[in-house]
Amino acid sequence: MKEIQFTCPAPLVAADCVLLAHGGGGKLTQQLIEKIFLPAFRSPALEARHDGGVVEAGGARLAMTTDAYVVHPLFFPGGSIGELAVFGTVNDLAMCGARPLYLTAAFILEEGLPLEALRRITEAAAEAARRANVTLVAGDTKVVDKGKGDGLFVATAGVGSIEAPNAIGPAAVQPGDVILLSGDLGAHGVAILSVREGLEFESPILSDTAPLWEPVEALLRAGVEIHCLRDLTRGGLASALNEIASARGVGMRIEEALIPVSEPVRGACEILGLDPLYVANEGRFAAFVPAAQAGAALEAMRRAPVSSGAVQIGEVTPEPAGVVTLRSRIGGSRVVDMLSGEQLPRIC
Amino acid sequence: MKEIQFTCPAPLVAADCVLLAHGGGGKLTQQLIEKIFLPAFRSPALEARHDGGVVEAGGARLAMTTDAYVVHPLFFPGGSIGELAVFGTVNDLAMCGARPLYLTAAFILEEGLPLEALRRITEAAAEAARRANVTLVAGDTKVVDKGKGDGLFVATAGVGSIEAPNAIGPAAVQPGDVILLSGDLGAHGVAILSVREGLEFESPILSDTAPLWEPVEALLRAGVEIHCLRDLTRGGLASALNEIASARGVGMRIEEALIPVSEPVRGACEILGLDPLYVANEGRFAAFVPAAQAGAALEAMRRAPVSSGAVQIGEVTPEPAGVVTLRSRIGGSRVVDMLSGEQLPRIC
Repeated sequence: MKEIQFTCPAPLVAADCVLLAHGGGGKLTQQLIEKIFLPAFRSPALEARHDGGVVEAGGARLAMTTDAYVVHPLFFPGGSIGELAVFGTVNDLAMCGARPLYLTAAFILEEGLPLEALRRITEAAAEAARRANVTLVAGDTKVVDKGKGDGLFVATAGVGSIEAPNAIGPAAVQPGDVILLSGDLGAHGVAILSVREGLEFESPILSDTAPLWEPVEALLRAGVEIHCLRDLTRGGLASALNEIASARGVGMRIEEALIPVSEPVRGACEILGLDPLYVANEGRFAAFVPAAQAGAALEAMRRAPVSSGAVQIGEVTPEPAGVVTLRSRIGGSRVVDMLSGEQLPRIC
Repeated sequence: MKEIQFTCPAPLVAADCVLLAHGGGGKLTQQLIEKIFLPAFRSPALEARHDGGVVEAGGARLAMTTDAYVVHPLFFPGGSIGELAVFGTVNDLAMCGARPLYLTAAFILEEGLPLEALRRITEAAAEAARRANVTLVAGDTKVVDKGKGDGLFVATAGVGSIEAPNAIGPAAVQPGDVILLSGDLGAHGVAILSVREGLEFESPILSDTAPLWEPVEALLRAGVEIHCLRDLTRGGLASALNEIASARGVGMRIEEALIPVSEPVRGACEILGLDPLYVANEGRFAAFVPAAQAGAALEAMRRAPVSSGAVQIGEVTPEPAGVVTLRSRIGGSRVVDMLSGEQLPRIC
């Protein structure tokens, strides 16, 4: 009798090796953070569990963040790893209430990568930096042998100056806060997967990759008391809400009927067997603000083209602690848990 | 008749693909910077051609830098990729005259990496951060499929606050400056290569990986007018001097007899066919200071254990512009050029 073989990305929680799911933004990613990174590096900035660390340097209040980008393929409808690497990091700064100022980029190239691809990616990143109004101030390039990489990986880090008057992060979220969503979900993940699977749609679904400081600045200028912001990348809306609910020990209730998903994305998700709540976005975020300011916040967000489709999708509840509940279109309720495994590897 | 095949890492200057030598810190790395990165990202910080960018944020004068680490193997005598990733970035800040404050780390893990290896590397990095007195404030982890990476890559970025009163960089180097070297050359490169080649020495040669802010701070406290600092990583002393000579349009003259290389390293270099001038170090730097301050500078450097072996090895000359000349032990002179190809791939 043949033994059953479990292979990645099954959620082997007791695995002693790195699995693809460790990079998926779900439970295994959280375990890696809890069990390996946090115990080694404990610092108040890390323990805030936010998208970037808030620090003081030379009297200035700054946010600092980093991300590695390993998206496959390197080019996809609506963008490339070049835009992602700039907007992804810029957006983590924006989610701290910080105006993005400076970026660094460290490239890991695989021997044999066409220089023309490198040039296109570099130009896309440079154009993205201009659009996001940030300056690249330092860079590095390493090359690994053929077969020891995958074309190009890049890690960017960013520094921004904090413009929010109060601390933004999971710790500031309150029962009674409303949950705002900046636009429709799922375009980035579906754009990537459509290339990988060779799917063609009537009109191609483009990644939503975009910089998000503009709507955050609009919220600040409108005087909205922002409690928390989170961009909805790896693991999508569901993982972002779960992370915050669990870090803060509150519940959240969202309404399926209020969550915008475009028709083409909904159709593609059905074909591909994906739940749009878990699909990665690269130009969408959730905002937590006091209920009394919901109207002013939505108005401010809608003034920025990137979040013209902003809507209120739910609210924060005192309990059940750490649980996100979805009221479905037909009136039933279900728990929206964090993914155990990996829905879409190498999406960003 | 069989056609001759040139393969990497031969210096195919007109190659249309990335070669290992593009990551070697020599001529091809410079070409990549000149032809692809600088035209796309032009900024004063990048054009200063230094180890980090100098920026202003919220009224503070900061240095910012990044490096990707792809060293193979991950563990070697005297350290691991964990220490390298911290000290390498911290040292780039120190070379800007900046006190290292904050780090970020972005890991790219290959599926199948033993979690125990990740734990050891993380702990080594955390211990290195404590030793260098920096705080890790943000991190990220991505996972790539087995066969699309090489165990673990990591990119770190750092922010430091500039404590030097004057601008430190190639532009400040003057004819008449002396060139100081902080200690003996070549231990890091030889430590790596000894593992790769399975060489055993009577007493193992340990990597010199170490943080360098302490001697820089000592120089500043002693009131030395530092013109330029450069840590001697990829491409070693020879590449560092060539980069600065060429960026500033000055000549440099160094004395072979004054350049310390330990007996074990010298012996290993002979066996391995390496020139210690080009071998990577991870805890050594060169300092350019006015001749009148050479004594004070050496005294300050020697007070820090990491640079107790500091010596003067040469001086800056008005010409020939961009050329580094070595006077050999037997009295002859030769030009020490930048490497065209790749002496030691994946050394850091």
